[in-house]
Amino acid sequence: MEYTIMQTKISQLLQTVEADALIITDPFNMRYLSGFSGGEGALFLAKDRLVLITDSRYTEAAERESSFTVIEENRSHPRMQIFRECLKEAGAASIGYEDLSLRCAEFDRMRSELPEELNWIPLGDQVDRTRRIKTPEEIELLAKAEAIGDQAFLEILKILQPGMTELEAAAELEYQMRKAGAGGFSFDTIMASGKNTSMPHAVPSEKKLEQGDFVTMDFGCTWQGYCSDMTRTIVLGEADEKQREIYQTVLAAQEAALSVLRPGLTGQEVDKAARDLISDAGYGAYFGHGLGHSVGLFIHEEPRLSPTGLDVLEAGMIETVEPGIYVPGFGGVRIEDMVVLTEDGYRNLASSPKCLIEL
Amino acid sequence: MEYTIMQTKISQLLQTVEADALIITDPFNMRYLSGFSGGEGALFLAKDRLVLITDSRYTEAAERESSFTVIEENRSHPRMQIFRECLKEAGAASIGYEDLSLRCAEFDRMRSELPEELNWIPLGDQVDRTRRIKTPEEIELLAKAEAIGDQAFLEILKILQPGMTELEAAAELEYQMRKAGAGGFSFDTIMASGKNTSMPHAVPSEKKLEQGDFVTMDFGCTWQGYCSDMTRTIVLGEADEKQREIYQTVLAAQEAALSVLRPGLTGQEVDKAARDLISDAGYGAYFGHGLGHSVGLFIHEEPRLSPTGLDVLEAGMIETVEPGIYVPGFGGVRIEDMVVLTEDGYRNLASSPKCLIEL
Repeated sequence: MEYTIMQTKISQLLQTVEADALIITDPFNMRYLSGFSGGEGALFLAKDRLVLITDSRYTEAAERESSFTVIEENRSHPRMQIFRECLKEAGAASIGYEDLSLRCAEFDRMRSELPEELNWIPLGDQVDRTRRIKTPEEIELLAKAEAIGDQAFLEILKILQPGMTELEAAAELEYQMRKAGAGGFSFDTIMASGKNTSMPHAVPSEKKLEQGDFVTMDFGCTWQGYCSDMTRTIVLGEADEKQREIYQTVLAAQEAALSVLRPGLTGQEVDKAARDLISDAGYGAYFGHGLGHSVGLFIHEEPRLSPTGLDVLEAGMIETVEPGIYVPGFGGVRIEDMVVLTEDGYRNLASSPKCLIEL
Repeated sequence: MEYTIMQTKISQLLQTVEADALIITDPFNMRYLSGFSGGEGALFLAKDRLVLITDSRYTEAAERESSFTVIEENRSHPRMQIFRECLKEAGAASIGYEDLSLRCAEFDRMRSELPEELNWIPLGDQVDRTRRIKTPEEIELLAKAEAIGDQAFLEILKILQPGMTELEAAAELEYQMRKAGAGGFSFDTIMASGKNTSMPHAVPSEKKLEQGDFVTMDFGCTWQGYCSDMTRTIVLGEADEKQREIYQTVLAAQEAALSVLRPGLTGQEVDKAARDLISDAGYGAYFGHGLGHSVGLFIHEEPRLSPTGLDVLEAGMIETVEPGIYVPGFGGVRIEDMVVLTEDGYRNLASSPKCLIEL
């Protein structure tokens, strides 16, 4: 993001939380605010002083990526001393800290090594909130990441076959994402088959894919740091009646949620559209997780689509829409797209087919 | 680890920290103590009560992987209520918490929702310390992970060539690790070429590998959760004199460190062996990071080999030995093996060649 836009955002943030300065240590917030992608270090942000502190492994990259003043932390100039110098220069009496991500021991250390009279202000989700509504540039990065996922999905359909292990199939899927340009993976790839698909977060195993198996693939990659997220379930061979019923129920639930999705609704309301459909079909007990979450530099962002989601959706927010039905001992289905809220609805960033694919 | 051995370890831990019970939320500590690999949830540990709390996505896997009592957390039975019930059953008045990994906001929430009279005891690194000395079984898992890395390195040597991008080369290296059995990757693969090798933590880019480039590969995978870590630098084509000098200096520094490595030394003493050699060769300013770190379920564990490492090394500890020289604008070299300390020295878990490879 442009330096001046970011300066304005940071000034507004300082006003909102009523702090003279902020200490930022969350890697995603660091990247969002400063442009620095290394993840190691800290930011000190005051009205006229934007400082990025990192160590010798990253200073070269930091100076290239960020417009902030880069200060190297090392044994002779440790981070706490740099903070003390910055606090003094800025004349800061109150300082915001990221209580949601900062660890207790690190906070204890800051309180003991920085001036006693400082007023510490927990930021809660205020910094994360600045990341909720994506800029057009961010949306294009997320769309590109999701498109890489689409491309990899089309390729994996040509590769999957009975006899491969889940681990081999996961390796192939990741390789296809990399070949399509993925910078990395946004989470550990899920590749589950047969009964393993009843575990929403199954880990790929040595189990071989078998004829008649459900195969659930939940996968995501990054493009310039921005994450994609997508799930498809297919059947190897011909689906039986129960598989077909479960699949169509999940698909109908996703369509029900998408049909109501628009700015102005709460996450709860969108979740309900899918959940009611699944409950009415008799599978309510088998859909234990929320309908979706936001995505950005981090794979699980707020606001969420869930039974407890009270935040109102706004244009520019990203959401996954991923209902599922998981029947222990039998198997499960999840179908997930990643969408961006628009003024009057949404744009689906995923374009992979959702009809029941029988390979 | 066997249930009874773990019970004993946990009893000892409770005694050491003088707490009636522990709340464990760090995913690696959770996995180590309970066997549960899902990473989401919490443990409540008291003398006769070992409880694993997780949500519906993971309960099936948790029950299979762990001998602890699994309790499902959900909206009608939330985590804080489960903690209250466990505390009451155990009659616990004091409770250890992981101040090194627990986030401020989560700690604030526990203090406000759990009985006011509880005595909260920060655990510091006491739980991590139980993980420092690896069992023979753990060492074999780490050795297997490192062997997968060795195998992938031999394969990537056949694949690397001028014209590939760093991203493509990283994809190939990861694919080779997967094909050799990797369960996942222990960190983002580093694949840097040419001038990019002067950044110790370079991120793979669209830059093409060129004839004459240094290519630094720092990569690791997991095997049953245990991490490998290895770095090799090669030259594409023939090395020039300066490349050769830097390479041989780094290699000699690694050999100097390995020649002194044994139980009884501090991390500082081992670091010094490599650092002195690099300084004497005139490159002291270009070796900005520590010599190494321990490895286990997490990629960066304690104790470290570094100028500030005062912990005494013991048999059964794992360490990386990874000196480097990074010359901005020119390039850099790092050579890294992962070793296990034995009674009278060490066993190198890596077997990839370390002579200067000119492809």
